[in-house]
Amino acid sequence: MSTPGISRRAVGIQESPIRKLAPLAAEAAKRGIGIHHLNIGQPDIPTPIEFWDAVRSNISTVLAYGPSNGLPELREAISAYYGRSDIAVDPSQVMITTGGSEAVIFAMMGTCDPGDEIICFEPFYTNYNGFATLADVRLIPVTSSVENGFHLPPPEEITSKITEKTRAILICNPNNPTGTILTDDEIAELADIATANNLFLLADEVYRDFAFDGRRHSSVLEFPDISQRAVVMDSISKRFSSCGARLGNLITRNEELMAGFLKFGQARLCPPTLSQYGATQMYNLLDEDYYSSVVSMYQDRRDILMEELHGREGIFFLKPEGAFYATIRLPVQDTDDFAAWMLRDFSVDGWTTMVAPAAGFYATPGKGTDEIRIAYVLEEDKMRSALGILKAGLAKYVSTR
Amino acid sequence: MSTPGISRRAVGIQESPIRKLAPLAAEAAKRGIGIHHLNIGQPDIPTPIEFWDAVRSNISTVLAYGPSNGLPELREAISAYYGRSDIAVDPSQVMITTGGSEAVIFAMMGTCDPGDEIICFEPFYTNYNGFATLADVRLIPVTSSVENGFHLPPPEEITSKITEKTRAILICNPNNPTGTILTDDEIAELADIATANNLFLLADEVYRDFAFDGRRHSSVLEFPDISQRAVVMDSISKRFSSCGARLGNLITRNEELMAGFLKFGQARLCPPTLSQYGATQMYNLLDEDYYSSVVSMYQDRRDILMEELHGREGIFFLKPEGAFYATIRLPVQDTDDFAAWMLRDFSVDGWTTMVAPAAGFYATPGKGTDEIRIAYVLEEDKMRSALGILKAGLAKYVSTR
Repeated sequence: MSTPGISRRAVGIQESPIRKLAPLAAEAAKRGIGIHHLNIGQPDIPTPIEFWDAVRSNISTVLAYGPSNGLPELREAISAYYGRSDIAVDPSQVMITTGGSEAVIFAMMGTCDPGDEIICFEPFYTNYNGFATLADVRLIPVTSSVENGFHLPPPEEITSKITEKTRAILICNPNNPTGTILTDDEIAELADIATANNLFLLADEVYRDFAFDGRRHSSVLEFPDISQRAVVMDSISKRFSSCGARLGNLITRNEELMAGFLKFGQARLCPPTLSQYGATQMYNLLDEDYYSSVVSMYQDRRDILMEELHGREGIFFLKPEGAFYATIRLPVQDTDDFAAWMLRDFSVDGWTTMVAPAAGFYATPGKGTDEIRIAYVLEEDKMRSALGILKAGLAKYVSTR
Repeated sequence: MSTPGISRRAVGIQESPIRKLAPLAAEAAKRGIGIHHLNIGQPDIPTPIEFWDAVRSNISTVLAYGPSNGLPELREAISAYYGRSDIAVDPSQVMITTGGSEAVIFAMMGTCDPGDEIICFEPFYTNYNGFATLADVRLIPVTSSVENGFHLPPPEEITSKITEKTRAILICNPNNPTGTILTDDEIAELADIATANNLFLLADEVYRDFAFDGRRHSSVLEFPDISQRAVVMDSISKRFSSCGARLGNLITRNEELMAGFLKFGQARLCPPTLSQYGATQMYNLLDEDYYSSVVSMYQDRRDILMEELHGREGIFFLKPEGAFYATIRLPVQDTDDFAAWMLRDFSVDGWTTMVAPAAGFYATPGKGTDEIRIAYVLEEDKMRSALGILKAGLAKYVSTR
């Protein structure tokens, strides 16, 4: 008997390149091999006690629906968080989402109809591909390169990709997977292009607190000329090491767009209630000491990455400026094969290191095949051990090819 | 300066008809009027202590991402839950979603491409409209009517709506907003139509535990001829009065479709972690006593509804068979106006009653304008009080028109 075929989008949506090596990792674990995970942005930093305190004190009778745009107290707490950076955000300009993931999906769906196009800079956070498939939007890549630390290519390379179907430019700043932070001039340049071509500027600023070496991250919200074009997508997952809470938010001063987001939100009722209590408490009670201690921890780990890998023969990358990722060129032809080999065929004293092959972060076929993404989310000892194993594996892999 | 327009889908997606009276309710509350909420399916039943115990005992250090298809222990617990009803579901056939909402969106996106059609029976859960807009799917309504208790219309009315773009039939059973439970013959009829026309059969079975008067709800999973066509969408929101947990699940034995769902799930990373601990414990520890006590509580409330409204002049509905809703015909022309009037102009001893106008549950313009949906989610005293006020309001409204 025939059975109905599944949809083309269900066939076509990419398998996560970050998660696709999982079966090899599971086999390695079965053989008793320990795995250092530098492949996924899951911080080891404790979720602040303020989160758990709020959960505990909100154990109640009925875990009820909340408002579709999120609890008012959380939207106010986020407004105050931006206020501390002298960025004026009214609570009505904030909508709480189920993770940064939903924020990106809603941003794409609110600005684009099926078949429309968004310009983005590759390598980019690979899950944008999945969101674009769900939203039936085409991502049009503009390639940035490791040689200049993945900063913006010349403006004409961007404008040459604009068509009548282009609705938005999408950036991730600080960047996953490169660790690059755009300068004010770069954001201004994008703002000009957006204005000249009547586009939205969608900014994934999930890592905005993680800017190294005294840098200050600038938000697209700080560019008044694009107040009606700017949309920020955010999350508490990394800021407060709360990935499993599934809470993010959208910010825009464009009231029409916010009204659309709210209707999307009504369809799915509300974001998780318990997590919102925890998030509110973290935004309200965690002070500058918390933020500076976390950023200095990630900066220290970045420095370990520099010590262990930077300048080594055949390895190339510039010093990451923020977030907790680096995209690194290796002296191998196919990092998919190398990453799989590390899990399958290599270990030191019963341990190996898992990295993310970078090709999955590019939309252009053939790009990034000699690069990996490293998430430096482990504490110092583990970082050194993981990178030591990576170097040893790389040397052996290269010598046997 | 021009600003970019938002997407057609952001303009076109419906505002929730359940939530759109909220501003009038807020104004009534400001005037000091108490509101009995019969307009929204938010149970007043306590979330079981097993949920809170699990949350408490999983207060840990890092609230981390879980697997994209959900925690294995929760998928196993759901498999065991079905096993207790003699329905064989392997944990690999279960995918945990962020609420029943995401389950419906993924089911639509996994079976339909943009522009494809799904046949559904109006009145239907109004949020299907929003999900269909997000998925760019057309819902093709077949009208059921209050006269026969909203059971299926003749098969030729269903098959006459099938086109080359039809990909699935969508049912909600037990039904929101009507309280109807399909008979085995009705499901078999739909299974035959699905098979003859090579369609999926998508079943929202969120209310499956709430079947009254000794009825047994049958799942589409119990019809072996459609094992590759059947998809169940489910949620813990009503079963365990845990609406704010935002946890649901998909079940299908179609491996290709499940593989597609999993990739959708990878894009958004994972469902809320903390809620999953709570859900696992509830599935594992709550026994038949819990389920029967909840269903008898809703049945009692259904009986109060019957006592208070059934057979009254101008009011028409058949006895609801399950879930906790009734769609009721009133002797008014425009229940939108009546529901607004109740909030704006009527109260008894400082209280009024809020109901959902039914037109928003129909896709065919002009249908349901003389009907309301009542969610009987309040305890006995409040139910009687709410319905008394409704009757008094109705009498006054009718007499002044």
